[in-house]
Amino acid sequence: MEKVLIFGHKSPDTDAITSAISFAYLQNSIGVDAEAVALGETPEETSYALDYFGVDKPRVVTTVSEEADKVMLVDHNEAQQSADDIDKVTVLSVVDHHRIANFQTADPLYYRAEPVGCTNTILLKLYKEHGVDVPKKIAGLMLSAIISDTLLFKSPTCTEEDISAAKELAEIADVSLEEYGIEMLKAGTNTKDKSADDLLNGDAKNFPMGESTVRVGQVNVVDTNEVLGRKEELLDAMKAQIDANHYDLFVLLITDILESDSTAIVFGAETVKAEAAFDKRLDDNVLLLDGVVSRKKQVVPQLTKAFED
Amino acid sequence: MEKVLIFGHKSPDTDAITSAISFAYLQNSIGVDAEAVALGETPEETSYALDYFGVDKPRVVTTVSEEADKVMLVDHNEAQQSADDIDKVTVLSVVDHHRIANFQTADPLYYRAEPVGCTNTILLKLYKEHGVDVPKKIAGLMLSAIISDTLLFKSPTCTEEDISAAKELAEIADVSLEEYGIEMLKAGTNTKDKSADDLLNGDAKNFPMGESTVRVGQVNVVDTNEVLGRKEELLDAMKAQIDANHYDLFVLLITDILESDSTAIVFGAETVKAEAAFDKRLDDNVLLLDGVVSRKKQVVPQLTKAFED
Repeated sequence: MEKVLIFGHKSPDTDAITSAISFAYLQNSIGVDAEAVALGETPEETSYALDYFGVDKPRVVTTVSEEADKVMLVDHNEAQQSADDIDKVTVLSVVDHHRIANFQTADPLYYRAEPVGCTNTILLKLYKEHGVDVPKKIAGLMLSAIISDTLLFKSPTCTEEDISAAKELAEIADVSLEEYGIEMLKAGTNTKDKSADDLLNGDAKNFPMGESTVRVGQVNVVDTNEVLGRKEELLDAMKAQIDANHYDLFVLLITDILESDSTAIVFGAETVKAEAAFDKRLDDNVLLLDGVVSRKKQVVPQLTKAFED
Repeated sequence: MEKVLIFGHKSPDTDAITSAISFAYLQNSIGVDAEAVALGETPEETSYALDYFGVDKPRVVTTVSEEADKVMLVDHNEAQQSADDIDKVTVLSVVDHHRIANFQTADPLYYRAEPVGCTNTILLKLYKEHGVDVPKKIAGLMLSAIISDTLLFKSPTCTEEDISAAKELAEIADVSLEEYGIEMLKAGTNTKDKSADDLLNGDAKNFPMGESTVRVGQVNVVDTNEVLGRKEELLDAMKAQIDANHYDLFVLLITDILESDSTAIVFGAETVKAEAAFDKRLDDNVLLLDGVVSRKKQVVPQLTKAFED
């Protein structure tokens, strides 16, 4: 049987990378020749998790059709977040926890989305439904993704199912959830060594909203001022990206993982939509977003509504 | 809690109507105030099943936003097959077994699609996952949907899961699968009392393909000539519908449920695409499609490909 490639979204985060690995393991266990790949470099937080549990980084690809006819998507569905040639392959399965948009198929497929905090929480159910045991290494990676996506259960996207999945996986992985979790999250907050473009693109996604394209990046920190102090440099880099890629709006969320608040740097032709979305005036390109940690639940729907009104 | 409406596609068939009923029963059992409604009149085959198991026809609606903010879709996802004001409500859940197209949400949702023959096969799994017993009446309706969608397991869309679900449901419903199945299918093959428009629209769906809109209707028969003999009348009615609704192609599948073959009447500006799809020349607006019984698997993907080539 020909090989199936499994991958998460571009600018991958811990869930995107580990859900590809854990879903590929499950597929292999039920007889499918599948390989996990990634649509971008492994970020530091994820590298920490992979090193901790002794798993290799997945191979990085940008296109897939030259080596596979069939693929499975995890942690995303929107075409602009996927492989550049996603329209040239058949999507067999999707396992995701995001909105559905800009996704279509010619044939019926397996699609499993649930409004939970993390793709790996759904994948744990699939392991059980298939009667496949989760090995220790894989459990560690799945746990890491839940910690990452829910910011150790502090995100409003976090559900009871995520918490109970994480506890179960921590048991299998044989780690202290809280201790391991803080260390892993901190590993992802190094911003000093990163260029402005790295900060903008490290975890960024494009969203079509109305007729516009909005790019929303997110960077986790333990000290907001470390990033906010580089605002002018970041605005210059945003402007260059907007000019090159015709974004109508660029939002960079700087999320304090210990305080569970975000500060947004906002730039572009449609900043008025960001003001409408949060009912706040921009102060020198900055919006303070108290209690906001989730791009998916606390930013994208609000912006989408503002662009559609 | 406010009421959630659950419904299948326009021009409903047995799966569309009964999956709304069986999903609503499941939702009620887990504490959700849900009501099954239908986006069209109950067809004769479905009426036979509802009468047999003593269940009332669902209320017919065309719009939903004036009475509900939240809905759940079964047996469809494409907006043009859904309520006219589907863009004004929030879709909480989808349970479906079709391709995904022309569907998008602002928020994450529960989406469960599997490439099986019938929505109710997936719903039986959901009953089990929630630990809810299927009552006899509901089992009878779910069984009816599987028989209808798979033409008693003869359709290529039918999977092992559909067959095993049907056997399990027949047991609960306390009927002979084969005997009941043939009687129910036959109840849906009365064409004599129907107008040309009724035949065209009884089980018809619109599909966007490339830049075009294609309407594909299907009518089950035990005697193909009963419908084919009315070809001129049907072509006139197709032409009127094309003029009114700007379809680029209209395909009516006349499916012999005993022989498991179809004959298609084809009309419109893009008949050349139908010829390309099936690699056959139209003979006086008619295509013989040996072994074709599934619109979803043996007609729509082939047409979609022809329109995209």
